[in-house]
Amino acid sequence: MSVASQMLQTYPKDLGGVDQRKLTACIDACLECGQCCTACADACLSEDMLDKLSKCIRTNLDCADVCETTARVLSRRTGYDATVTRTVLQACAAACKACADQCDQHAEMHEHCQVCAKSCRRCEQACQDLLSSLG
Amino acid sequence: MSVASQMLQTYPKDLGGVDQRKLTACIDACLECGQCCTACADACLSEDMLDKLSKCIRTNLDCADVCETTARVLSRRTGYDATVTRTVLQACAAACKACADQCDQHAEMHEHCQVCAKSCRRCEQACQDLLSSLG
Amino acid sequence: MSVASQMLQTYPKDLGGVDQRKLTACIDACLECGQCCTACADACLSEDMLDKLSKCIRTNLDCADVCETTARVLSRRTGYDATVTRTVLQACAAACKACADQCDQHAEMHEHCQVCAKSCRRCEQACQDLLSSLG
Amino acid sequence: MSVASQMLQTYPKDLGGVDQRKLTACIDACLECGQCCTACADACLSEDMLDKLSKCIRTNLDCADVCETTARVLSRRTGYDATVTRTVLQACAAACKACADQCDQHAEMHEHCQVCAKSCRRCEQACQDLLSSLG
Repeated sequence: MSVASQMLQTYPKDLGGVDQRKLTACIDACLECGQCCTACADACLSEDMLDKLSKCIRTNLDCADVCETTARVLSRRTGYDATVTRTVLQACAAACKACADQCDQHAEMHEHCQVCAKSCRRCEQACQDLLSSLG
Repeated sequence: MSVASQMLQTYPKDLGGVDQRKLTACIDACLECGQCCTACADACLSEDMLDKLSKCIRTNLDCADVCETTARVLSRRTGYDATVTRTVLQACAAACKACADQCDQHAEMHEHCQVCAKSCRRCEQACQDLLSSLG
Repeated sequence: MSVASQMLQTYPKDLGGVDQRKLTACIDACLECGQCCTACADACLSEDMLDKLSKCIRTNLDCADVCETTARVLSRRTGYDATVTRTVLQACAAACKACADQCDQHAEMHEHCQVCAKSCRRCEQACQDLLSSLG
Repeated sequence: MSVASQMLQTYPKDLGGVDQRKLTACIDACLECGQCCTACADACLSEDMLDKLSKCIRTNLDCADVCETTARVLSRRTGYDATVTRTVLQACAAACKACADQCDQHAEMHEHCQVCAKSCRRCEQACQDLLSSLG
């Protein structure tokens, strides 16, 4: 059981009907994807064909920032705001999709882009799954 | 002239038709609002009526995170992605509105909430102005 | 194998003699601790005895910020700077120690503080282990 | 008067002998430098000689992260912890020095690196000034 899951289970008040499994999955996916994108941007910086990777790096950096902010917003349960949660999840799904699309273009040449594209797709899906469950 | 504005003017490639005045205004508003929300959450933690401020603090923390991420995404011009930019701006406007609404409820009793509510309204407006100009 | 570990193994250049096991352990500990501290601050906001938890919440927020920044700095291997790495790890160990000490004071009453204190102690240790290995 | 300064003046409890002028100056310098480094990394990504800027970009990214975390830690006054504050300021001074040294090497060719180096030097100095005043 991840620490994110333990923290949800020790939250002192009612969690208000949220799907705890999808919430935990989304928090964990955002953490993983955020780190992966930071590392992928850095790995791109050390590639010989760096001049072809500028858009990939930029998209990685955006995705890292948005994923980490999303993990934080989702980790907070006090004073839940549906509109903030929804719009943040939509931004995160968009950033993950954009980054996966970029990394997929280099996935055959750069293994880090392949790992990163998969992490972004998982995170995009986790955001969509949580969004659907919010009703 | 703010440093954000200087950095835009020294960007080596074409800025692609973006309204530079609105873009700079939005970056500066996000930076100001992000810091203000961090400080307001902390000031609330030192209030005697802290038990009535838990939702205000949570909303402050979300707004700080979303504003800082928005400032970063907007500060990047390489490989512009319209969908990521739009959804991030929408999330930022939502977080600023939610925080301003919370802080306004305490604005008469707590001067820091009054300063923060105004900063959030300015930032929400700057996000909306930039969104409108994106066409 | 964590994604952080996969990303290290797909890094295109030489990793320069760093202890990869300790580096990965430290990145993973920082990610876990950062999320845990964000969630613990929020759980504290929902406790009935909130007025006794203001210092704990503040320490949680600092620790979350410092851990996430440390995870990012450590995830980058290009253009390694020993002084930046060392001082960031020292700040992270200090933030984790301060947060563990606070959470330990409430660990018997609040299970989230117990989970968080343990995560902070693991992260502090992982930072110290990595610092020692940097030679 | 900056919003950071207004927030300090509306803080509800005693500020505990900190030099408010140096504290505000340091918060404002960290915010400015954090944004500047994000923008400089992105401007470097659009330079023709990108392959010579990989270390500069990496140092920019570290400096942006550390400056933003430092601005947050300094913006919180509740439950002040001297060790966390000191180590964070030392990490920020180190990150700013490293980034200024990198940007200075390209300052004649790239105006954004010149603006960024100056912002980093100001921020390094503001951190040192605040550190000295902490006694």
